[in-house]
Amino acid sequence: MDIASKIREIPDFPQKGILFRDITTLLKEPDAMVEAIDLMTAELKDVDFDYILGPESRGFIFGVPIAYNLRKGFVPVRKAGKLPAEVIRKEYALEYGKAIIEIHKDAVIPGKKYVVVDDLMATGGTSKAIAEVIESMGGEIVKMEFLIELTGLKGRKLLSKYDVSSIIKY
Amino acid sequence: MDIASKIREIPDFPQKGILFRDITTLLKEPDAMVEAIDLMTAELKDVDFDYILGPESRGFIFGVPIAYNLRKGFVPVRKAGKLPAEVIRKEYALEYGKAIIEIHKDAVIPGKKYVVVDDLMATGGTSKAIAEVIESMGGEIVKMEFLIELTGLKGRKLLSKYDVSSIIKY
Repeated sequence: MDIASKIREIPDFPQKGILFRDITTLLKEPDAMVEAIDLMTAELKDVDFDYILGPESRGFIFGVPIAYNLRKGFVPVRKAGKLPAEVIRKEYALEYGKAIIEIHKDAVIPGKKYVVVDDLMATGGTSKAIAEVIESMGGEIVKMEFLIELTGLKGRKLLSKYDVSSIIKY
Repeated sequence: MDIASKIREIPDFPQKGILFRDITTLLKEPDAMVEAIDLMTAELKDVDFDYILGPESRGFIFGVPIAYNLRKGFVPVRKAGKLPAEVIRKEYALEYGKAIIEIHKDAVIPGKKYVVVDDLMATGGTSKAIAEVIESMGGEIVKMEFLIELTGLKGRKLLSKYDVSSIIKY
């Protein structure tokens, strides 16, 4: 199946000039959703790792079923103020303004191996911030896996020290 | 496995007097996460339905793997302004203040059968608002499935016209 054909393009969202890649049309069709998850699972099945890190909230959509398939732990990466226990917080620059991510402190374990999973890699800024949190605590990022990659935004350059993989490239 | 023992209790989050049920400790342990998803999947495997509705963002955590297991479509229910195409919006009352949910208009199809999946049922207000959106467009809610139910908040009363099921009751 051509799963890329199931992703809808929405011009000027969330702001003028951006062509948004809408995965809700893919999620709505069981065969397309299953194939997307299976392709991402296959990319990780021979990777030695302990936890998947999924950024809120579309990272949950692919991160959990892949963790389920491969019998790994899932660690949510959330926006500020959402996680209830002690967190490590990281502020990072966006194209316009700043963003904050938080990860539970007890989910970052020295020596453990982590994979970042998200629906889309744009500039790579969020993934880089996540990786820096994990590494600051002695964890290791062994791979970053995305359904969609916007190659024009050069996320691979920002993430050049990591093993980055994506299923659909625009 | 006693999966309830994997859910951490956090007092006074997000505000004083609330005992928060933290599922991140369950998600971190593959066996517990898999069992939670499998138990929820089993509750739905003999139900005739087309789509799972998962509210942002913890509803994504359980809704997607269950949709994957049962080969159903997944429809995200999001907060205001997050969905890129035309939405149906519903405002509803919370204990303090108001909340807004949005669902893509083209994901609500007359005559189709929908199941609401979320991590936790408290007052049931969000699930009721979702159901009202679906019904207003001629869709049908055939079940609501939760990992955790806070029985003291009487969500079942608010949702009395629906078939409600939960795995862990407090």
